[in-house]
Amino acid sequence: MTTPDDTAALNERHRARMERKKAIIDAKIAAADKQIGIIIVNTGNGKGKSSSGFGMAIRALGHGMKVGIVQFIKGAMATGEEQFLRRFPDEVSFHAMGEGYTWETQNRERDIAKAGEAWEQARRFLADPAIGMVVLDELNIALKYRYLDVDTVIADLLERPAMQHVVITGRGAPPELIEIADTVTEMNVVKHAFKAGIGAQAGTEW
Amino acid sequence: MTTPDDTAALNERHRARMERKKAIIDAKIAAADKQIGIIIVNTGNGKGKSSSGFGMAIRALGHGMKVGIVQFIKGAMATGEEQFLRRFPDEVSFHAMGEGYTWETQNRERDIAKAGEAWEQARRFLADPAIGMVVLDELNIALKYRYLDVDTVIADLLERPAMQHVVITGRGAPPELIEIADTVTEMNVVKHAFKAGIGAQAGTEW
Repeated sequence: MTTPDDTAALNERHRARMERKKAIIDAKIAAADKQIGIIIVNTGNGKGKSSSGFGMAIRALGHGMKVGIVQFIKGAMATGEEQFLRRFPDEVSFHAMGEGYTWETQNRERDIAKAGEAWEQARRFLADPAIGMVVLDELNIALKYRYLDVDTVIADLLERPAMQHVVITGRGAPPELIEIADTVTEMNVVKHAFKAGIGAQAGTEW
Repeated sequence: MTTPDDTAALNERHRARMERKKAIIDAKIAAADKQIGIIIVNTGNGKGKSSSGFGMAIRALGHGMKVGIVQFIKGAMATGEEQFLRRFPDEVSFHAMGEGYTWETQNRERDIAKAGEAWEQARRFLADPAIGMVVLDELNIALKYRYLDVDTVIADLLERPAMQHVVITGRGAPPELIEIADTVTEMNVVKHAFKAGIGAQAGTEW
């Protein structure tokens, strides 16, 4: 049985532990005082890479920034994120490559041409200091298939306005991109509903 | 030098490889035909757990679903996602626990009371079939600190409407929750801007 004395002791230990934790965290926060546009890469085989990019887009919108989004590879199907974000044309510029995944088109030359067009749109966002965040969804796939030249992409990324954030998603991020990125997360599958026979569903997958 | 013949051969190999890939993927999609509300857990120490939850929320909104959001632990600071999503009160019900992280409060009993209130709100969403997606942001932290009882939480989750999706985020997801979840992703840090002295910034972190 827990007595009032036990609870008081537990509460006090908790308070003391949290006080120490706060001192450590506050010191780390004080040391990390740079404010600058960063490059975030979400890669790996797990879920959440694109959705995290769209979640950061709405964070940026909440802070009054303008957001530019280019969807590479995806785009043959109207997605929930696209339908929702197109409601805010003054705040969000949305460009979808307009083709399915590369195994749907089965046409390398058309894919290369479409990826090139999408990158031209990305470059316009990356040259515009009025855009606070650029989301390059599934760019890693276009790089992995060599539809785009990684050195050109990196040069354009590094020339962007100093305060502009960029979020890049897709499995198989190339090492050159990881090298220049500020924050890189690998999303790993622990389990996936698809394996249990549950199809891709509106709201969760698209 | 690449000759026209080389390019033609490369294009044809690409087409054949993508044709095989499409057959495999189409068969997998045909086998995964169940449509049912799923539980998605985003855990691990990397970035993207909460932002992925908010990205799924906008996917759901784009498909005309209503979304209920409860933010556990976070909430002392107005976040970008909250500011943005509060613009749609007919579509999004947003409840923030209204306290900082647990090392900010240093008060275990107040944290427990606040977590209990937040769970009562979560239960209302989980009992409402009109809500297509429930996002329980940082719930794992409340479970980890035992501010909430994991068995009660799981019982409420399992009793929700059949077609309702739930997204649960936060590091340290308990094994009991992983067991009942349909899709679990672990976000792992490859690198983080914070370590390079860059502070938490509007749009990317909050």
